[in-house]
Amino acid sequence: MPLTVKGYAAQSATTALGPHLFERRDPRPDDVVIDILYCGVCHSDLHQARNEWHNSIYPMVPGHEIVGRVSAVGPLVKTFKPGDLAAVGCMVDSCQHCDPCHEGLEQYCEEGLTPTYNGHDRHDGLPTFGGYSEKIVVSEKFVLRVPAALDLKSAAPLLCAGITTYSPLRHWNVGPDRQVAIVGLGGLGHMGLKFAKAMGAEVSLFTRTLSKEAEARRLGADHVILSTDPEQMAAARNRFDMILDTVPHPHDINPYISTLAREGVHVVVGLLGQTEPAVNTVPLIMGRRSVAGSVIGGIAETQEMLDFCAEKGITCDVELIDIQSINGAYERMLASDVHYRFVIDMASLAKG
Amino acid sequence: MPLTVKGYAAQSATTALGPHLFERRDPRPDDVVIDILYCGVCHSDLHQARNEWHNSIYPMVPGHEIVGRVSAVGPLVKTFKPGDLAAVGCMVDSCQHCDPCHEGLEQYCEEGLTPTYNGHDRHDGLPTFGGYSEKIVVSEKFVLRVPAALDLKSAAPLLCAGITTYSPLRHWNVGPDRQVAIVGLGGLGHMGLKFAKAMGAEVSLFTRTLSKEAEARRLGADHVILSTDPEQMAAARNRFDMILDTVPHPHDINPYISTLAREGVHVVVGLLGQTEPAVNTVPLIMGRRSVAGSVIGGIAETQEMLDFCAEKGITCDVELIDIQSINGAYERMLASDVHYRFVIDMASLAKG
Repeated sequence: MPLTVKGYAAQSATTALGPHLFERRDPRPDDVVIDILYCGVCHSDLHQARNEWHNSIYPMVPGHEIVGRVSAVGPLVKTFKPGDLAAVGCMVDSCQHCDPCHEGLEQYCEEGLTPTYNGHDRHDGLPTFGGYSEKIVVSEKFVLRVPAALDLKSAAPLLCAGITTYSPLRHWNVGPDRQVAIVGLGGLGHMGLKFAKAMGAEVSLFTRTLSKEAEARRLGADHVILSTDPEQMAAARNRFDMILDTVPHPHDINPYISTLAREGVHVVVGLLGQTEPAVNTVPLIMGRRSVAGSVIGGIAETQEMLDFCAEKGITCDVELIDIQSINGAYERMLASDVHYRFVIDMASLAKG
Repeated sequence: MPLTVKGYAAQSATTALGPHLFERRDPRPDDVVIDILYCGVCHSDLHQARNEWHNSIYPMVPGHEIVGRVSAVGPLVKTFKPGDLAAVGCMVDSCQHCDPCHEGLEQYCEEGLTPTYNGHDRHDGLPTFGGYSEKIVVSEKFVLRVPAALDLKSAAPLLCAGITTYSPLRHWNVGPDRQVAIVGLGGLGHMGLKFAKAMGAEVSLFTRTLSKEAEARRLGADHVILSTDPEQMAAARNRFDMILDTVPHPHDINPYISTLAREGVHVVVGLLGQTEPAVNTVPLIMGRRSVAGSVIGGIAETQEMLDFCAEKGITCDVELIDIQSINGAYERMLASDVHYRFVIDMASLAKG
């Protein structure tokens, strides 16, 4: 029978998040039931809670950076048992029969992935609810193992901020002798610096304020380039094999494109919308450069990323909060006042 | 001593092209002197004759699709002798010491290629003059061999329209089992169809009018997609590995991006300027798709393309004109009234 679960939900686009009781499905044979310990707070949680992408389903329980402990498993589950650590990211299902699914690229499922929240389960059609809650029930195929070496609260944001930056860095072959730049120093950007450095690249951060220089260097930047300084931008021309652009709001990408090397690629992972001002094609044409996008990563790659983090000693820099502080945390996130990710201590749910 | 040469030149942005006597340099030891037989008429000739790129040098002798016969060679020239057929494309020199030049990618020379016209020679600093003329003097390294199998007048546009489409198709690995679409059916687009088909791909043409269907199929298209028909566009979603966009004026590329497969690339070769309306990043992000650019090709690749054309029996579809008709030809080109490239019979220069 269904599990009654406590969480925090938005009841509409204009209401603050508050306590909410809801049902999780009766576990299916391939399901893993996870008691959630920590859940990261992603900028997309805020976008969706406030219906900024115009596709919100209410009540909405956000959260897709989930770490917890298995409390029960269905009879077909092979790789998890009660007591194991487990994690869930941005998706909880996909069609499992298209080419991308067969290639382990479930994030590009041709029939559309099932998002961890603000979607509908593809079997029973019921809304999905995310990690701002006590428990979650997820098909084994979409549950990740958490290496013992990782600090749990600091590992939670790896499930979105981590894989969103790790996957494109891998896809575009970042490694030694490669020049990589990161745009934006938030939850995604700070992970981009750590990963690019750990992969062996020479890493730069583009920033609009030099006040971030010491922090950027601590996080892995070899160079910090003030994007508002024409001289520094001119000196960086033709340098980067890849630019990972994590900025989530509209911004001019043309100055960055000019710093790409021949065949370099500017990869947008944060901005969903129009590239305004418009992209000028001349630097693309005159250097066989490109502008691309990337979304999270597949399940196998997400596991690879968690294992890479354990091996390299990488986690996110987080600020732990109680669930009761979530609405204030959203406001601080809007003001870029977070270093670098809020993570909810789900034990706080017991307080009410 | 310098050669006095007859050609056709624009004396300013607003004057029609007319007869013009000018000097070619005294051949250097590595130079090849070519009597020009045919010169193709590229849209960029018109752009530059009218200073639409705001960098024109007058008087200007346009033309960079040049086929002719060698009349003299310098003492260091090894691969050409008088009487040989020869061709010259969009560039006549490059720095020869940067990485792209070492890799045979002179078109991306870090110090800038020397254009065949509307540039300055990198040794003597004098303006370069193009192929609307009797003769041209070019360093051996930038002279191409013309396979005997090629019809000369129909081969001339291969030097720009040909290599501009061949190079990106090769770079993005077009071949059997690949889905390729061409946007635009002009001088570049019709070569894109021929090349993509000859490389073994399944080829589609996007068009705004079905009146081009029979022609497109004759030129190599397996499918013709009416881009103004939402149903046909919807049916083409997620199909193409590569779209080669040859349209030279601003246009909305977003509908085409939606027809790219995962990791597909939309390559712009015709439009130099802003991508307006702005590119929406969502289809890029949700399919790891990209927008890229490409310009002509390197010298070795241009030779490879000419040899490929000889092997496959490919040339351009041309309309031969006298040089005296050049201004009218420009107007017809503006009206897209050419199938598919004007080529000047340079013997007509003798008429005045």
